[in-house]
Amino acid sequence: MEFSARQIADVLEGTVEGNPEVKISKLAKIEEAEAGSLSFLANPKYTSFIYSTKASIVIVNDDFIPEQPISSTLIRVNDAYSAFARLLELYNQIRNEKKGVSSLAFISPSAKIGQDVYIGEYAYVGENVVIGDKSRIFPQVYLGDNVQIGKETIIYPGVIIYSDNKIGNQCTLHGGVVIGADGFGFAPQQDKNYKKVAQIGNVIIEDNVEIGSNTTIDRATLGSTIIRKGVKLDNLIQVAHNVEIGENTVIAAQTGISGSVKVGKNCMIAGQVGLAGHLAIGDDVKIGAQAGISGNIKDGAIVLGSPAIDISVFRRAIVHFKNLPVIVKRIEEIEKMIKRGESSDREL
Amino acid sequence: MEFSARQIADVLEGTVEGNPEVKISKLAKIEEAEAGSLSFLANPKYTSFIYSTKASIVIVNDDFIPEQPISSTLIRVNDAYSAFARLLELYNQIRNEKKGVSSLAFISPSAKIGQDVYIGEYAYVGENVVIGDKSRIFPQVYLGDNVQIGKETIIYPGVIIYSDNKIGNQCTLHGGVVIGADGFGFAPQQDKNYKKVAQIGNVIIEDNVEIGSNTTIDRATLGSTIIRKGVKLDNLIQVAHNVEIGENTVIAAQTGISGSVKVGKNCMIAGQVGLAGHLAIGDDVKIGAQAGISGNIKDGAIVLGSPAIDISVFRRAIVHFKNLPVIVKRIEEIEKMIKRGESSDREL
Amino acid sequence: MEFSARQIADVLEGTVEGNPEVKISKLAKIEEAEAGSLSFLANPKYTSFIYSTKASIVIVNDDFIPEQPISSTLIRVNDAYSAFARLLELYNQIRNEKKGVSSLAFISPSAKIGQDVYIGEYAYVGENVVIGDKSRIFPQVYLGDNVQIGKETIIYPGVIIYSDNKIGNQCTLHGGVVIGADGFGFAPQQDKNYKKVAQIGNVIIEDNVEIGSNTTIDRATLGSTIIRKGVKLDNLIQVAHNVEIGENTVIAAQTGISGSVKVGKNCMIAGQVGLAGHLAIGDDVKIGAQAGISGNIKDGAIVLGSPAIDISVFRRAIVHFKNLPVIVKRIEEIEKMIKRGESSDREL
Repeated sequence: MEFSARQIADVLEGTVEGNPEVKISKLAKIEEAEAGSLSFLANPKYTSFIYSTKASIVIVNDDFIPEQPISSTLIRVNDAYSAFARLLELYNQIRNEKKGVSSLAFISPSAKIGQDVYIGEYAYVGENVVIGDKSRIFPQVYLGDNVQIGKETIIYPGVIIYSDNKIGNQCTLHGGVVIGADGFGFAPQQDKNYKKVAQIGNVIIEDNVEIGSNTTIDRATLGSTIIRKGVKLDNLIQVAHNVEIGENTVIAAQTGISGSVKVGKNCMIAGQVGLAGHLAIGDDVKIGAQAGISGNIKDGAIVLGSPAIDISVFRRAIVHFKNLPVIVKRIEEIEKMIKRGESSDREL
Repeated sequence: MEFSARQIADVLEGTVEGNPEVKISKLAKIEEAEAGSLSFLANPKYTSFIYSTKASIVIVNDDFIPEQPISSTLIRVNDAYSAFARLLELYNQIRNEKKGVSSLAFISPSAKIGQDVYIGEYAYVGENVVIGDKSRIFPQVYLGDNVQIGKETIIYPGVIIYSDNKIGNQCTLHGGVVIGADGFGFAPQQDKNYKKVAQIGNVIIEDNVEIGSNTTIDRATLGSTIIRKGVKLDNLIQVAHNVEIGENTVIAAQTGISGSVKVGKNCMIAGQVGLAGHLAIGDDVKIGAQAGISGNIKDGAIVLGSPAIDISVFRRAIVHFKNLPVIVKRIEEIEKMIKRGESSDREL
Repeated sequence: MEFSARQIADVLEGTVEGNPEVKISKLAKIEEAEAGSLSFLANPKYTSFIYSTKASIVIVNDDFIPEQPISSTLIRVNDAYSAFARLLELYNQIRNEKKGVSSLAFISPSAKIGQDVYIGEYAYVGENVVIGDKSRIFPQVYLGDNVQIGKETIIYPGVIIYSDNKIGNQCTLHGGVVIGADGFGFAPQQDKNYKKVAQIGNVIIEDNVEIGSNTTIDRATLGSTIIRKGVKLDNLIQVAHNVEIGENTVIAAQTGISGSVKVGKNCMIAGQVGLAGHLAIGDDVKIGAQAGISGNIKDGAIVLGSPAIDISVFRRAIVHFKNLPVIVKRIEEIEKMIKRGESSDREL
């Protein structure tokens, strides 16, 4: 795909300064751009790069005044950053555009497939599955019986959705995600065996949720594991059975949430955090990386450490941790001094 | 699937109180049940819900005496909890019932497939693979050459089992599990490159083992990585080469076990624990969440922390951690006092 | 596959002592070997096993002098360990040898497939994909549009490579690896929603890289996430967008690297380590297990702890951590003593 400066300026409602026929086929950072790339200048810190960049086209703000000659063609717009972000999105849309239902996919006769749906090769679509309009099911995806997929949702290759689970509209599930495997429930027996507790609930994922690669979300024992609208989960996250994650909460990679935890709205949870079972985490909570959460957390709290405590308390304490040898030394000195004092007292 | 109160009472050997023809199609908690659901009342804490529940049928203990009118049909049984658990299992069996060998699966001519085996679409069954009676191989599973699968074992979609590995009877492997990839073994070379050490051992998984989604178990360098009977592994766990995990040990999500570790029987290991290489962990050991294990652990020990120590020692120590600033302050006060004492001594 | 002692001695340029026609079909440790196995003796600690081993053949050093009768056939070579390692490799090569392009794979007409390439069943090869000579693409692999795979590279089953990513020569990607999913980038909006930032960069993996099962490497927002030549990544590792990992760096399982981190050459990073975003980690750095890295690290540093500090400082401090209750007790004693002293002063 190649586009000329003139074509791009038309899309962005900008003006061309330089050769309007120069063509680009990719987008790049101004400091890394090669010939045939389009870049942008928004942050003044990067201004120096515009005089040496090999980008064929650079988008700049209307008020940019060059101080040296520039070899790239410029496109002047109102807001260079927004214009570039818009091009990123267009590029991304074109790149991932896939159409039609492959004859190499398996689709149960009872499945209901919406308008303009893409279903790739070797995908498996079970009985009574419903897929909404304009959704894209990539190759090698598994949709178990009765799975429901909303509209304009993207399911990338290798995603596995067990039976009876529901995915909302405009969701994105990345490669290798597993939705609705059995929760980890076993009842100890007298002979030290464990007996499996049947897990017959499901997973409900509301609209506008994004889930990163190889993340796992288990089905509820009874009822539903629920991911509310707008939640963003990074890669390799574990969400156990009967968990509920509130609206617009964002969770970074490799965090694990134990069974029946309820996480509030608008929380930010960093990477490699662990939450013990059956906890209630309030709204607007922030949890620092590698924290271990073993108790409920109130709205708006910011915590760190394992076990986690208020972040400012943690930070004040941790500076002393590495000084523990010195602290102990100081105590020894004091004890010696007192001993000397006592013995001299005695001598008196 | 719909069942009437009469049919369910027959299965459970219970007695119907109310309309025996009312039908249900799902199971639900008493506080969440909608019309068309069956629920149960066992824990007295939930008794109040039985007067307002929308469940069409509620299973209750024989000795339950209502104090208000109840709109649901009741089924009286000896033990409501056990009866409900039995229904859960029946429901689960019906739900996952799949039969036959798909014509869209690839099955090597040399593979030996038992009676009543299910093999789903796009599954790959390599040379000399053996699959025991009544096992179910879901779509998109990979079984490498010489893999052996026991009887009544379930391999969910997207599971990858490399060649030469053995899975026992009545095991369950969830979506995205990878069994028998190469152990992480590299020999450092003089030019700072690493040379791969060939990993030609295998993985042996004994009977009645369950393995959670996206968990990885590497093949041994030589010999076998062994998961003993009754072991339960949660999601996203890492088991390195030549590890052995003893009978009935249970491990929660995201824990990692380094190469050649031997874990005993009946252990409980919480989530996000890390075990360093070549350790011996005794029987009946309990390891708390996020612990870091860097030494051997004796039978029956309970440990926590990174590096892990006895749990009661850890708990007594951690309460002081957040007070470190106060502790240091107290030392400073003492030092000042002593200084004042000394100087007043000198003044004397 | 069976081989006689004579055949093996020929390959290894060794001499047979015993029955040259005895046959073996597997390789095993000397202490575990059964009849029909070949083993080796290199470490003198294991010498006692050679008199009781059931191995049919044992490779020994030329200068080995038995002190008791040995029932196994011996093959004498210059260096028993190297000879055995060579057999391991040969065995591994034969075991994984797969040939030809399956008629059950989907290959876009625009894809360019090299000489002697293996492509397994249900693999998906997108538009303009390039696969180098002698590379092996196992069943159920996904190669998105424009993916480039070098020569002699192995892509195991279930690996997902999104469009536009590049894999070098002689790389090995294990089952369930996901390369090039979108980086975790979202811009917070005023209504507490998040707006996705399009991720249009890619992933570049240089030559001789090995990546463990279910590891995830995200594509760059713009530009490339880069894994330099000789890097070895274990299982279940997270590599975020725009990360760069330097030559010959080795990383153990379940470690997570946040966005835009630059890791140097020849580093060793243990398991379950977390690195915060935008950090610079020097060359030859060693990071201990479960460490949390929140600042830049200089060349050659060795760190541990969360937050990580110099390893010797950490080790000196942690020994005091479990004694905190005793430390506090000692302070209390001192305070009491001083109080007594003061009150006796006052009494004076």
